[in-house]
Amino acid sequence: MKMTNIVYQKAPFTREELIKKVQNRLSEKRFAHVLRVEKAALSLAEKYQVNLEQASIAALVHDYAKEISDEDFIKKIKSENLDVDLLSFGNAIWHGVVGQYFVAEELGICDQAILQAVASHTTGSSEMSDLDKVIYIADYIEEGRDFPGVKEARQQANISLDAGVSYETYHTIKYLLEKKVKIYPKTIETYNRYVART
Amino acid sequence: MKMTNIVYQKAPFTREELIKKVQNRLSEKRFAHVLRVEKAALSLAEKYQVNLEQASIAALVHDYAKEISDEDFIKKIKSENLDVDLLSFGNAIWHGVVGQYFVAEELGICDQAILQAVASHTTGSSEMSDLDKVIYIADYIEEGRDFPGVKEARQQANISLDAGVSYETYHTIKYLLEKKVKIYPKTIETYNRYVART
Repeated sequence: MKMTNIVYQKAPFTREELIKKVQNRLSEKRFAHVLRVEKAALSLAEKYQVNLEQASIAALVHDYAKEISDEDFIKKIKSENLDVDLLSFGNAIWHGVVGQYFVAEELGICDQAILQAVASHTTGSSEMSDLDKVIYIADYIEEGRDFPGVKEARQQANISLDAGVSYETYHTIKYLLEKKVKIYPKTIETYNRYVART
Repeated sequence: MKMTNIVYQKAPFTREELIKKVQNRLSEKRFAHVLRVEKAALSLAEKYQVNLEQASIAALVHDYAKEISDEDFIKKIKSENLDVDLLSFGNAIWHGVVGQYFVAEELGICDQAILQAVASHTTGSSEMSDLDKVIYIADYIEEGRDFPGVKEARQQANISLDAGVSYETYHTIKYLLEKKVKIYPKTIETYNRYVART
């Protein structure tokens, strides 16, 4: 995969320019994670015939809003008249669901498929596009990840995008439950669609 | 607890008459469960100062719709214009959420507190009344229940209604997840309210 061969047509900048913009907003550690997610996303996109440009852009911006302050997220939730239930969650949910608004506004990315992939990258949804699945999975299995089960997660992603989504969703909920962390309703929609037996 | 001492004022029949009506709709085994739930509910209601008549009636009718056919539930979901998402669930959810309509219609019970307790007895909700909690818990810990953890569930219910709700909800979701069964969104609302750390 030669990433530098991707020429952006859906964004008002080159890949190198986007990388700079992202780097400016993130810690060194998180920026390195973002580059690894792009690598994993492009590999999945190539395997599953997903548009490489969209996969590259969505991966590079998926955590764009991760270091935005809670205060600014709350302002955005109010100014965009988003579901007030969002206020009872936090950065883990906001940086995707609300983060898409910062990506659109500050980076001028208007491609709805990309914004949707950013929005759903931590929760999934009941109707995920292949691009959504690629970003959701790439974030979980990028080569820097090292948690019990990551090997199996990579194997499942290699079988199919749906198998990858299912494995990740199941284990994410199990983890949240063990830690007694609030579960965002959309995460359960993802579980009901991609994990539960029908 | 002398159950026969309860005189119904919120229902157009005596306790004995209600018991007959319920018995006519249920298998012998389930009817025995219902009587045990009433016993547990009255014990909890007495401990936590919940109205005994409401606890008795709600307990006796909580499974009233349990043996109604899927076909009749689907008809009711459509005729009452209930959330179409309900159609992707089954009897386990319907007999409470939709069951309340059969209880109201066929038994003439109009007490909203009772109907709400019936509606939420398998899923809970994000804002449970004490009566809701009593029925939700009683169904789980009645003396005939025998599953790993039931002893701890009874101990938690003895500490507080919220502790009982929390224990039951946590373990119910864990069980559903292990079995990869669909999870009704309201169950997660209950988890987020009574189990998750804020």
